[in-house]
Amino acid sequence: MKLPSKYLDKAVEELSSLPGIGKRTALRLALNLLNRSEEEIQAFAQSLTDMKGFLKNCKTCGNVSDTEMCSICSNPSRDLSIICIVEDIRDVLAIEATGTYKGGYHVLGGVISPMEGIGPGELNISRLLERVQNDVVKEIIFALSPTMEGDTTNYYLFKKLCDQEILITCLSRGVSVGTELQYADENSLGKSLIFRQPFKTNN
Amino acid sequence: MKLPSKYLDKAVEELSSLPGIGKRTALRLALNLLNRSEEEIQAFAQSLTDMKGFLKNCKTCGNVSDTEMCSICSNPSRDLSIICIVEDIRDVLAIEATGTYKGGYHVLGGVISPMEGIGPGELNISRLLERVQNDVVKEIIFALSPTMEGDTTNYYLFKKLCDQEILITCLSRGVSVGTELQYADENSLGKSLIFRQPFKTNN
Repeated sequence: MKLPSKYLDKAVEELSSLPGIGKRTALRLALNLLNRSEEEIQAFAQSLTDMKGFLKNCKTCGNVSDTEMCSICSNPSRDLSIICIVEDIRDVLAIEATGTYKGGYHVLGGVISPMEGIGPGELNISRLLERVQNDVVKEIIFALSPTMEGDTTNYYLFKKLCDQEILITCLSRGVSVGTELQYADENSLGKSLIFRQPFKTNN
Repeated sequence: MKLPSKYLDKAVEELSSLPGIGKRTALRLALNLLNRSEEEIQAFAQSLTDMKGFLKNCKTCGNVSDTEMCSICSNPSRDLSIICIVEDIRDVLAIEATGTYKGGYHVLGGVISPMEGIGPGELNISRLLERVQNDVVKEIIFALSPTMEGDTTNYYLFKKLCDQEILITCLSRGVSVGTELQYADENSLGKSLIFRQPFKTNN
């Protein structure tokens, strides 16, 4: 795609560096921006540089935050002796949206992935081990995605943590709520049989 | 989606103002940007403000350009007595990619759409009428999208141009190259019968 302007070309190149945005979509986005006023584009650009400039990582859990300590870690009604290990902020948002969890989090910032060159050193793991050493931690919940990389990371963390007196749990696997049994994948259905639970009428 | 940072929230809001980008995708893009260096984000933001600041519209055809006159209008090997009317730069790129057209363009910047409040006054039409008055124009090709809005715009332009001694043509309609006949939509197949062409062996 040969564009008639080096400025447009540069903008399209930058926009298409975003995940899931191809050249064609990037051109569509650039032309949409081009139709806005100079102030609007300025505000758009400023919001991105501000985000980078002002955003911090919570010094306890590593989640993004405007302050030294995020709103969850600084909330006295949360039980920080339970730590839920997640990959990134989106998982925190997803779990918070369920309204069923009142413990703390620890955001790794990724999972171990030799294919992408991400080792344990790239992740927010040493801070987790510090928390386990220095704070009162009763339970660690593994809530990483059920992928090969997630499982590898779980295993690595388990090896680091298993000699401590901490309950280590992971999210239950099974058939999704609302799924018709015949459409459930066999792996999840198998897991849901192995880990079957006592039936309760108030579940 | 309640984000733990007003800066992240602002960036997500701006990104989700782009067409086809929802809140969830915007968060994904914002987190991707957040993983880059300050310089990279600066360059990203700069490319957008530069695009707005430096990009011009060709004073002849209205296409985006770095210069007063775009590379097509200033190219002496192009025959500007033939003007192809298109909606925006993407259509110019698509037609240029065919390699079959050596005339000029006129970029309207949209089509007449009462639903979206776009009337003839919002489009680059007066400059087209000027070109027809002042320059030697032999043919005008309507190459707008075959939608209700495109057809309305064609009709409006035709009314403005039909009293001039100019050949007015439009793109041929018919079955797509490579389409199996049984899968062609009936409208295109119907048009391809009505506008059937003399068979040539070198087509």
